[in-house]
Amino acid sequence: MRSASIRFVKGHGTQNDFVVLPDVAAADLTTELIQSICDRRTGIGADGVLRVAATGEAGGYFMDYRNADGSVAETCGNGIRVFARFLVAAGLQEPGEFVVGTRNGPCAVVVPADGGDITVEMGTPQRLPDGKVTIDGASWPATGISMGNPHLVVLDAGAVSGLDLTRQPGYEPADSYPDGVNIEFLELLGDHHLRMRVHERGVGETRSCGSGACAAAVAAMEAAGERAPYLVDVPGGRLVIDWRADDQVLLSGPAVVVASGEYPFG
Amino acid sequence: MRSASIRFVKGHGTQNDFVVLPDVAAADLTTELIQSICDRRTGIGADGVLRVAATGEAGGYFMDYRNADGSVAETCGNGIRVFARFLVAAGLQEPGEFVVGTRNGPCAVVVPADGGDITVEMGTPQRLPDGKVTIDGASWPATGISMGNPHLVVLDAGAVSGLDLTRQPGYEPADSYPDGVNIEFLELLGDHHLRMRVHERGVGETRSCGSGACAAAVAAMEAAGERAPYLVDVPGGRLVIDWRADDQVLLSGPAVVVASGEYPFG
Repeated sequence: MRSASIRFVKGHGTQNDFVVLPDVAAADLTTELIQSICDRRTGIGADGVLRVAATGEAGGYFMDYRNADGSVAETCGNGIRVFARFLVAAGLQEPGEFVVGTRNGPCAVVVPADGGDITVEMGTPQRLPDGKVTIDGASWPATGISMGNPHLVVLDAGAVSGLDLTRQPGYEPADSYPDGVNIEFLELLGDHHLRMRVHERGVGETRSCGSGACAAAVAAMEAAGERAPYLVDVPGGRLVIDWRADDQVLLSGPAVVVASGEYPFG
Repeated sequence: MRSASIRFVKGHGTQNDFVVLPDVAAADLTTELIQSICDRRTGIGADGVLRVAATGEAGGYFMDYRNADGSVAETCGNGIRVFARFLVAAGLQEPGEFVVGTRNGPCAVVVPADGGDITVEMGTPQRLPDGKVTIDGASWPATGISMGNPHLVVLDAGAVSGLDLTRQPGYEPADSYPDGVNIEFLELLGDHHLRMRVHERGVGETRSCGSGACAAAVAAMEAAGERAPYLVDVPGGRLVIDWRADDQVLLSGPAVVVASGEYPFG
């Protein structure tokens, strides 16, 4: 693989950034290649790699998503927007609604022709045990929500800009979250408008977490007793969450294709 | 500028990374464009931009070096190696010795045809006032050296891996360094072999600092009373410093061209 150049595209969704690889076979996407590409100093630099794979069905594409360390990931609300934007920008899909294959199953997306926000079906939330989250002795009640992955949502954490998320917050009940949990801290900015910071399990604080924004809005809607579109401002930008009558959660947000190129050089 | 795509090349020297822009006119290299390109989430990501400019002389190139914030920089021992590697990789210069124009003046470089370490003339060191450096109550004597920019070198800081460089170390005499100072902490690994960590003024700890490695080796040679090639291991790799009889300091180290492409996409 490393002797011939491969085509890449770099993009981001609310500052969660990815390298899209349109022409790489699964067998060639080694852990070493992924780590080399994602290194922010010696490679191109990204949070993960999105390999484009044709599905068996006519005109369908599967998003083979890998984290920067090479590990396999199920899906990602930010990554799938970048993937969908790439498919349209590259002429592989027409604008409008189409399906992207993921390890979580087929996922419907809507890509407007004008470059506006992309909407992704994020699945149906499940309740998890409620609990408590602690930072430096301060603690808050937290709502447990699964969006395929587990979340504890602090509905009213006050001014979230002051929170120290450089370390793992404490949480309970620990035995309900044996594989760890993503923790969202919300600040109420107005009607149906939240500011959110998130600590992702195994990662630390991130600029954006699509499933976390979904869990946050779902928890807020449950507490308010009504479903309505919510704006969720994350450090990397603004997401919009809706929760349809059929229980499907919809995530809308920007996705930008930044640059294209050849790797390695020469 | 932003409506048409521009060609770019990304490269790094001991993990100090740069975007080389071969085809951009000076007037088009706006602060906004530089900041957009260098953003590690929403752009390509780099410590700085190296614009390629033809000099008046036949076959000569000037390195128009800008920091990631858009500010003008004089030169950079790591950047000039990446710039020189690019010129050879792109066929703009033959391997061997040639001159690169910088804001510090013409600079002789040697680029081996085999891709090995590139050697750069870094100028003549000047002595600055010696002083003292302090971290968390621990203090060390420090040797003052100018390599065009000011350095305080701690010749024997013990095991440098344990130092906390997340904050600005204290230093004196402060009035001798009114514009701040780069501070190098050395650990003696063997004869003519140093490990170095560096706190760069206005930046914080970096993976590598070419002029800092030069200042470190010069201070060590002065203390030892002999000139000899020194290996300087920085977090981002290994540099070799020599100090010629004509007082010119030579910096040798790796430079890698990583990827090429078009920015923005489409």
